[in-house]
Amino acid sequence: MSVPNPFIKDYLMTAGPTPLPPRVLAAMAEPVVYHRAPAFDALFARVLERLPALFGTSNEVMVLTGSGTAAMDSAVSNLVRPGQAILACAAGKFGERWIELGEAYEADVLRYEPGWGTRLDPSEVGRLLADHPAVDLVYVTLSETSTGVVHDVRALAEAARAHDAMLVVDGISGVGATALRQDEWGIDVVVAGSQKALMTPPGLGFVSASARALERAAAQPAGRYYLDWNRAIAEQRKGATPFTPAVTLVRALDVALDLLGEEGMDAVLARHDLLARAARAGVHGMGLELYGDPDERSTVVTALELPDTIEGARVPGLLRERGITANGGQGQLKGRILRIAHCGYFGAFDVLTILAGLELVLHELGADVDLGSGVAAAQRVFAQAGVPVAAPSA
Amino acid sequence: MSVPNPFIKDYLMTAGPTPLPPRVLAAMAEPVVYHRAPAFDALFARVLERLPALFGTSNEVMVLTGSGTAAMDSAVSNLVRPGQAILACAAGKFGERWIELGEAYEADVLRYEPGWGTRLDPSEVGRLLADHPAVDLVYVTLSETSTGVVHDVRALAEAARAHDAMLVVDGISGVGATALRQDEWGIDVVVAGSQKALMTPPGLGFVSASARALERAAAQPAGRYYLDWNRAIAEQRKGATPFTPAVTLVRALDVALDLLGEEGMDAVLARHDLLARAARAGVHGMGLELYGDPDERSTVVTALELPDTIEGARVPGLLRERGITANGGQGQLKGRILRIAHCGYFGAFDVLTILAGLELVLHELGADVDLGSGVAAAQRVFAQAGVPVAAPSA
Repeated sequence: MSVPNPFIKDYLMTAGPTPLPPRVLAAMAEPVVYHRAPAFDALFARVLERLPALFGTSNEVMVLTGSGTAAMDSAVSNLVRPGQAILACAAGKFGERWIELGEAYEADVLRYEPGWGTRLDPSEVGRLLADHPAVDLVYVTLSETSTGVVHDVRALAEAARAHDAMLVVDGISGVGATALRQDEWGIDVVVAGSQKALMTPPGLGFVSASARALERAAAQPAGRYYLDWNRAIAEQRKGATPFTPAVTLVRALDVALDLLGEEGMDAVLARHDLLARAARAGVHGMGLELYGDPDERSTVVTALELPDTIEGARVPGLLRERGITANGGQGQLKGRILRIAHCGYFGAFDVLTILAGLELVLHELGADVDLGSGVAAAQRVFAQAGVPVAAPSA
Repeated sequence: MSVPNPFIKDYLMTAGPTPLPPRVLAAMAEPVVYHRAPAFDALFARVLERLPALFGTSNEVMVLTGSGTAAMDSAVSNLVRPGQAILACAAGKFGERWIELGEAYEADVLRYEPGWGTRLDPSEVGRLLADHPAVDLVYVTLSETSTGVVHDVRALAEAARAHDAMLVVDGISGVGATALRQDEWGIDVVVAGSQKALMTPPGLGFVSASARALERAAAQPAGRYYLDWNRAIAEQRKGATPFTPAVTLVRALDVALDLLGEEGMDAVLARHDLLARAARAGVHGMGLELYGDPDERSTVVTALELPDTIEGARVPGLLRERGITANGGQGQLKGRILRIAHCGYFGAFDVLTILAGLELVLHELGADVDLGSGVAAAQRVFAQAGVPVAAPSA
């Protein structure tokens, strides 16, 4: 271990796990409660009552103890039996997880892969469904964390509905950070996780499944147990869970839902939108380009292209030397992009901090960047929006 | 909500979740770390290095984000394909979970169910394996939390080995609270959970699988994804996890392993043994009988028969009115037994507290019990053992 540098504090600036509000952290230090006692019953009821609003649904949202991927797994293992045909859409690492899941459960997987960083094209999904009438399940991603792209799940749901297929949406990084109206948009299943916009540590997965999705799962009960929806929904209707839940994380979520409720979900989404606009202005302000489909700009994660004149793969490590843990590119994007996360407990100065850090790192790597240029551009966005970050005269 | 009674404090005295040491609670209020950053790498390495000793194994113990049941699920979904024959042994609620799991994954399940509260008979397991040569997997329980019985997994492993079958052990409440020497006893798979003797909140499952068990899983890769051992072991060998782990719980476990290391595992097991002896003495001291096989006395949970002259189903609720959350009987034992848990962060005064609470409740219900009789008997056990609970002259 090197001697700590007193100028360097730790800033968790990843797209998941995301930083936690102090009240959430403090709640986890409370004594553990037994999951079959009145204190947990009341806690779990409060959580179950407030989750559906985040999805824009009247479904009962299932709470699973597991990563977001556990919830994704359940959306395949509960709905698909070996040999059944599904359409898996992937334009990034997390979309590809649907393909892997389909193959793991021995589905007949039709792939739609328009390339990383692109947006899924609803008309192409429609064409594929028309050509493959056996497919009655479509798997897509809301916010593709690996590329920063938010997909148009509303239009994708329309395309699926036109061919009588169910749409399953990975909303792990999207739910609570970008608009989602599951019922209005006609989406059958949305899965989510605790460690993104929900401001809770990783370890809880959520599933909002329509009545017909639950019926399909009930009609084919084999091939899963721990992640079985039938058991989960039956117990939740009694206010319980089929297995010992991660009680400290449920309590953390309870406090996080308090905080989201106090801010108001409209204000939460508006905050994400403003943080994203400031991040984009900052990227442009320092002369860099955004990565991905220019017609779509995410409120969850802002991906930017690193200058090809520098060793891009060194950027995350040099940020870390300054105390900032941020996401570079994954897979084929390693060294090519940096991702500025602003989903969850992020504020204006967090965006300014990572922009300032990036400027310093690019400067060290010899890129042509003016220190302060990105920060100033983001400050102007906040000042114009009335957020008291810059001086009024700026 | 009723007005709090200032005489009543909260005592979590269940067999899982179990109470947490203050240092473990405090660790969870620390800032979240990113799971692909050096700080987590070091944390995870510390945990992985220390887990095998708890199992008595040189296997790499896999850490899954999920309940203990997730780990049990993985021991079926990774080893069994539809139509394969297994022997599932059940003498209580958690043994029955192996039957349910086998059926969920469409195994050909041979059942051995000698009745709740009995001990699994290794010779009977041997006979069943001789009669059913297609069976090459046997599922048993180490500590059956629903009845308080600890099964002789050493002898069961011998019986399985004599017929070339692998033994899979549910060690969820047993690991860390009762003797287990997986490698020496020739046990192929042991699963465990974080929320029992490991003094960590629920939400982590553990799997210690032998090389041949991992080979069997690798040879049949379909039918699971999130709980897949191949993915877990491949990532762990790189010091990572395939999916976002429950980082706050891994940190809690890290601190709990510090505490277990400071106490020393021999001392930890000796503490559990002494707490159990005191609990049994307390039960007899108030004139009650222990439940279950008299030849075996658990160091994990002490189950006692409630007098049939009282309404036994009221006991847990009346204890809770006094601040004590304890386990009554589950399923067919509801109202018939009370379980005194002493696995994990339990000390001498915890045993005295629940005995004192039980005496008060039995008194209220009109049972023939002398107040203090159970407490005094337990005090004598501690005093004789040199634990400074009772006065030296007692």
